[in-house]
Amino acid sequence: MAPPALPIKCKAAVAWGANQALVIEEIEVDAPHAGEVRIRIAATSLCHTDLTFLGVEQLQFPRILGHEAAGIVESVGEGVDDLKVGDHVLPVYQGECGKCAPCKSQINNLCEKYWPFLKTTMMLHPQDQKSRFSITREGRTQLILPFLTSTFSEYTVVKANCCAKISKEAPLDKACLMSCGVSTGLGAVWNIANVQKGSTVAVFGLGTIGLAAVDGARIAGASRIIGVDINPSKFELAKKCGVTECVNPKECDKPIQQVLQGLTNGGVDYAFECAGKMELVVAALESTQEGHGKTVVVGLDTPGSKLILDPTSLLCGRSIMGCVFGGFKGKTHVPGLVDMITKKEVVAENYISCVLPFEDINKALDLLKNGKSLRCVLTMS
Amino acid sequence: MAPPALPIKCKAAVAWGANQALVIEEIEVDAPHAGEVRIRIAATSLCHTDLTFLGVEQLQFPRILGHEAAGIVESVGEGVDDLKVGDHVLPVYQGECGKCAPCKSQINNLCEKYWPFLKTTMMLHPQDQKSRFSITREGRTQLILPFLTSTFSEYTVVKANCCAKISKEAPLDKACLMSCGVSTGLGAVWNIANVQKGSTVAVFGLGTIGLAAVDGARIAGASRIIGVDINPSKFELAKKCGVTECVNPKECDKPIQQVLQGLTNGGVDYAFECAGKMELVVAALESTQEGHGKTVVVGLDTPGSKLILDPTSLLCGRSIMGCVFGGFKGKTHVPGLVDMITKKEVVAENYISCVLPFEDINKALDLLKNGKSLRCVLTMS
Repeated sequence: MAPPALPIKCKAAVAWGANQALVIEEIEVDAPHAGEVRIRIAATSLCHTDLTFLGVEQLQFPRILGHEAAGIVESVGEGVDDLKVGDHVLPVYQGECGKCAPCKSQINNLCEKYWPFLKTTMMLHPQDQKSRFSITREGRTQLILPFLTSTFSEYTVVKANCCAKISKEAPLDKACLMSCGVSTGLGAVWNIANVQKGSTVAVFGLGTIGLAAVDGARIAGASRIIGVDINPSKFELAKKCGVTECVNPKECDKPIQQVLQGLTNGGVDYAFECAGKMELVVAALESTQEGHGKTVVVGLDTPGSKLILDPTSLLCGRSIMGCVFGGFKGKTHVPGLVDMITKKEVVAENYISCVLPFEDINKALDLLKNGKSLRCVLTMS
Repeated sequence: MAPPALPIKCKAAVAWGANQALVIEEIEVDAPHAGEVRIRIAATSLCHTDLTFLGVEQLQFPRILGHEAAGIVESVGEGVDDLKVGDHVLPVYQGECGKCAPCKSQINNLCEKYWPFLKTTMMLHPQDQKSRFSITREGRTQLILPFLTSTFSEYTVVKANCCAKISKEAPLDKACLMSCGVSTGLGAVWNIANVQKGSTVAVFGLGTIGLAAVDGARIAGASRIIGVDINPSKFELAKKCGVTECVNPKECDKPIQQVLQGLTNGGVDYAFECAGKMELVVAALESTQEGHGKTVVVGLDTPGSKLILDPTSLLCGRSIMGCVFGGFKGKTHVPGLVDMITKKEVVAENYISCVLPFEDINKALDLLKNGKSLRCVLTMS
């Protein structure tokens, strides 16, 4: 039996306040408590959600953001029996207790134990409502709050229930993509819409999630995948991922839903709103076939936004659905998703706009903020 | 070969203007044209849609309303090979050409030929845009417009594609219920939500469609069926149909969605909005389980109403869907539905508040308008 783990000192990118640049600091990371694991992060990528929360004035700081990462288990807490030191893992916010009704169900990925945690107290460890991170400056020690899986750190601590063991063959600097955005887009297509072979698909918004929806639709065998974006510079990559035609609503002389209806004899079978604009959800819905069209809302709009629908656009036999993490369960499904990257069924390189050392995290955040990158992967030395 | 049919004189209840009492008149009904059948109506029931359209000031009159009926084929037009004189039938507005993509699909009941007809030109026969009904008064002959299947008449003419052949064992004065409301409620449960055995269901609005949703949920094996209505006098019948518990939102001290969440450990698996109130759609949606809850919008609100949703109520893994005629195809599915009435799997008597002679149609409309009847069946002498 290994000796009990001790607290560890390492570097982390600390957010000291809303909209402030992150600061690389030496912090202390607790040993994992019972049921937890401590992970040495190998690579972490940036997601818009990190940016969004960094912009929330009401949020308490200091805090360690980050939730798309891959790493290696460095130590395990008491009672953890499905993970061991040296395992390659992805920390995943979509945890699984394995015992509740949703965990036992084939159609619900919102674990009763870990999903409310995400919604209401995602900032603290559910076990004891206390952070595992602290910093000591001028003799004074202060806790640093976590956020989801807090991967902007050389080490992080998560519940074993929020940690997916992956194959050692997987490249960690690419596998990290499957922690959030790419999985969400793929799952929206496979689990939520259940896109059928030979069908027609429209994807609104060709960012990371949209491209992943395109990848998902291509793998599902869709015969037509129409990419919709007001930024035509995204079209080349979208075609590489599987888009068969692109439409720029700004270049159309009628509403985009009418354009898509015209292109597809009445509408597509499935539409995916991946841009996070509620008015686009309406366009997406009306772009689908009456009688069976399905629309999946994937993108998050600004808090407080409303979705305003004409009920007849639903009553004529359409449906609209949402999802968290594409309907995937973290521990159960992420290992298989990572294998798809290893086998190049999903080409990670399509999503990775840049690779930078962890120290350049602010540069990476700027690129994301300015729409200059899809995913930037930060590697730990 | 039978001699060609001739025009026939009969009685019909004619609407001469919006919100006016119908007038029983002697009218002339054309012989069926090519592809059409003329049906002697045995019984017709009243649906709210008739009332709604009778109230539309912009509608052109005179017109023959009615669309829930059963009868016997009296004559057939040229080229009709699947129906013959003497067949027992239900005229159905949800026609099937049998050749288009939706007709060949298992998941779409909106025939490309007959569904646009319903939406845009349901007032006229699609073949020649001309009515089959006329009236002669003081030597002057005037056309009377149709509406859907125009069953408020001793004889009507519909396309053979809009006519379902049923078993001769079926009681026509009960089978007529399967032309619209009851089928819609059953289909919303079976075809659209696909309610699973052992699941929990909430039905908002316990009118005809709501009771049919209850019947559908009971037959599908739902373990809990919660009926929601602000009129507690509906609860007794609802329990007879299969409701396991009733909730009156007016007697609750918190929003109905919170009440249902509390009753069901977070929400029901399926909710059906059968009252046609968009604010109830929101309540229904939020009454369902996060992660997999499905809400079916069945009721029609007033034209121009909007459905205003908080997108997070969808994004947490719920879905919302609509349907026409419960997703059923008229010719394909109605015969089986009628058999369920014959076998008393669906108890027609639960829906039939009164049986009156056809001549008392205005009395029946008043009962419906004043909420005093679910379905009133009018029998032809």
